[in-house]
Amino acid sequence: MHQHTRTDPYSDRYAARAAGMVASEIRALFAVASRPEVVSLAGGMPYVAALPLDIVGDMLGDLTQRRGAEALQYASAQGDPDLRARICDVMAMEGVQGSPDDVIVTVGSQQALDLLTRIFVDPGDVVLAEAPSYVGALGTFAMYQADVVQVALDEHGLDPAALRETLETLRRDGRRVKFLYTIPTFQNPAGVTLTASRRAEILAVCASYGVLVIEDNPYGLLGFDGEPMRALRADDPDNVIYLGSFSKTFAPGFRIGWALAPHAVRAKLVLAAESAILSHSSFSQFAVREYLTTQPWMEQIKSFREMYRDRRDTMLDALAATMPEGTSWTRPAGGFFVWLTLPEGLDSKAMAPRAIANRVAYVPGTGFYAGGHGRRHMRLSYCYPEPDRIREGVRRLATVIEREIELRDTFGTSSAPERPGVHTPGPDTA
Amino acid sequence: MHQHTRTDPYSDRYAARAAGMVASEIRALFAVASRPEVVSLAGGMPYVAALPLDIVGDMLGDLTQRRGAEALQYASAQGDPDLRARICDVMAMEGVQGSPDDVIVTVGSQQALDLLTRIFVDPGDVVLAEAPSYVGALGTFAMYQADVVQVALDEHGLDPAALRETLETLRRDGRRVKFLYTIPTFQNPAGVTLTASRRAEILAVCASYGVLVIEDNPYGLLGFDGEPMRALRADDPDNVIYLGSFSKTFAPGFRIGWALAPHAVRAKLVLAAESAILSHSSFSQFAVREYLTTQPWMEQIKSFREMYRDRRDTMLDALAATMPEGTSWTRPAGGFFVWLTLPEGLDSKAMAPRAIANRVAYVPGTGFYAGGHGRRHMRLSYCYPEPDRIREGVRRLATVIEREIELRDTFGTSSAPERPGVHTPGPDTA
Repeated sequence: MHQHTRTDPYSDRYAARAAGMVASEIRALFAVASRPEVVSLAGGMPYVAALPLDIVGDMLGDLTQRRGAEALQYASAQGDPDLRARICDVMAMEGVQGSPDDVIVTVGSQQALDLLTRIFVDPGDVVLAEAPSYVGALGTFAMYQADVVQVALDEHGLDPAALRETLETLRRDGRRVKFLYTIPTFQNPAGVTLTASRRAEILAVCASYGVLVIEDNPYGLLGFDGEPMRALRADDPDNVIYLGSFSKTFAPGFRIGWALAPHAVRAKLVLAAESAILSHSSFSQFAVREYLTTQPWMEQIKSFREMYRDRRDTMLDALAATMPEGTSWTRPAGGFFVWLTLPEGLDSKAMAPRAIANRVAYVPGTGFYAGGHGRRHMRLSYCYPEPDRIREGVRRLATVIEREIELRDTFGTSSAPERPGVHTPGPDTA
Repeated sequence: MHQHTRTDPYSDRYAARAAGMVASEIRALFAVASRPEVVSLAGGMPYVAALPLDIVGDMLGDLTQRRGAEALQYASAQGDPDLRARICDVMAMEGVQGSPDDVIVTVGSQQALDLLTRIFVDPGDVVLAEAPSYVGALGTFAMYQADVVQVALDEHGLDPAALRETLETLRRDGRRVKFLYTIPTFQNPAGVTLTASRRAEILAVCASYGVLVIEDNPYGLLGFDGEPMRALRADDPDNVIYLGSFSKTFAPGFRIGWALAPHAVRAKLVLAAESAILSHSSFSQFAVREYLTTQPWMEQIKSFREMYRDRRDTMLDALAATMPEGTSWTRPAGGFFVWLTLPEGLDSKAMAPRAIANRVAYVPGTGFYAGGHGRRHMRLSYCYPEPDRIREGVRRLATVIEREIELRDTFGTSSAPERPGVHTPGPDTA
């Protein structure tokens, strides 16, 4: 079969870092998955329709009329001081004591990741991440030509013994390790949470090897039981850089995230941000600040939590009721995602087109590994579809998996070749 | 004198590109310049208070109430398709025929610059720019460790003969030139405009040397006489990447800029943008789209033009009335800036603190050169202060210059050591 490739006339002019930039294979899948007849368990979009849009609209109109001359003007590169103060109040709920002066407001926490990688990572430097880890972070690390080494996690989160072993090996090999990137709470994609005792161990291991920790915590306030977990940053201000976001607790449409970093690092981040975007949207910052100041935002988070817990329950019940033997999955205590493991010999990536044909979409596990692993896994999200759709989606998925098992039993397993490269996330996979 | 330096405990961990990242020396000056008693002729902020804030507020409130579930959600990395179509309408006013599919919406045109440099520039590659050029662009090029070579301009804009000579020398030296960065219309900081005949020459020279052109055009619709100039991109779609922005024609507070690029380059830009920020603010994009669809935006631009022309006239009249002999300046036909040349032996950088003490601020010319040149120049902006303040600011500046001339005549000239490095812009210097 002849494959027609469109030639890029600029191909000999790109920088080395651009050579590996290829669109994720799951991108084409997503275009199809967005058809209304497909139940998408793939996206990571929060359910913003649950916000009181009338009230938010009045708030934004009023804000523009009262303070438009500032809200429509350039902002500072570090971000609005009042918003940074409110951000410190939010982090205090997880035990974090931070100064507004050590906060930088970013275009989602994705930009914080980009800026941190920019200031810390030379090509070939090692970055540690969980196996599996957030697809968008892996894409950023690859963009800066980092060598991503992933460390196993289990139902209690990242494994401290595996981390120590990996660091020891890297030290023996003389490798330069720049930081550990971790999502300790309601992990994306695995849906697991690092236990309190492991938190202490992870911090101790990283400190002893002189490795910075980047703690990405977009879901921390979306726990389904009890109080928020204590953040890693709360117990090691000098060695942990904390990333947060209002995308899941308020709305992603303003793209307000942040980093809390030791003072010298924060100063570098501001210079890098100026070079990257000059300043973030003043209007977005005013909008979130106004929301936090005038609206019952903690009540809204409580209501989001209840809605997502209900959807999580729906998904877990549906999985238990329909999944064939040999399939297993995690039981998230918060956040958006369930991580599902297929019966032996099945391949989530090869199966994806057949799932779409059966009108259900998920993200194949391979997206969450730098090296092409993850074929037996998939990420299922329950954040966006309503409960009836979740039930129907899981039912369809179970049917697809059953057919795959039949195929496997009849013809044996097949595996497609891996295609490494920089996989950038769609917003859908955030 | 002992200089106390605060130690950065993370200094041995940064990437090579971060080593040169230092705060601009003019930054401290700006902090002082923002005091109300100082007339700032330094900033490049548009006068957004002239917008009908009541109407814009109603528009945003209504938008949120009607379409909040989309406006508060994640956007696509390339940007809203309807906004991209409106952007093509705007560019058509300058003769540009572009497809919405070749447009990417960016966080101001600053982000377009960052992404373009990211995909094209390896450390040591040559980037060409005008002498002087936009401080924010120079900062971005330095961030990616480009070697910036600046080419002379005069009152007719960039000099094609000088460009050809520079390219010839670079070719002889075996250097890899990635692109020419140019602001052909109402240039920042020089306030000059490339003539029509030079436009054709510049395009021909770049095409013959295989050098891409990045045309940065934030002020193109803010001309004071006649029709908008024809953009470079209008006459060479394959070799020109066009950058635009709504920061000056509407409001910077939404941070909506864009790039129009050949298809293959646009595809790389989208992947780079996903890795950098996932997606731009959906709300910002909806806001600008709504503004362009429902408001008389061309009338608003006309009114901005009249206001800025009035301020330009005020500044030119005041300069003519007060400046001592030996001082010269450009006469911009649009945009925000006048470029002033001091009498021989004067130093705009050394003079800046004395100007601030005399309650007037400007940007020293050195910020607009990669190599520390520009001491006899300064940028004066007339966009933000009201006419009375412009007159008073120029009067104060003339007094300062006169005193400097006296000092020079009495004691001779003095020059301070240069301090090269990556100078990132404050939003004030945009």
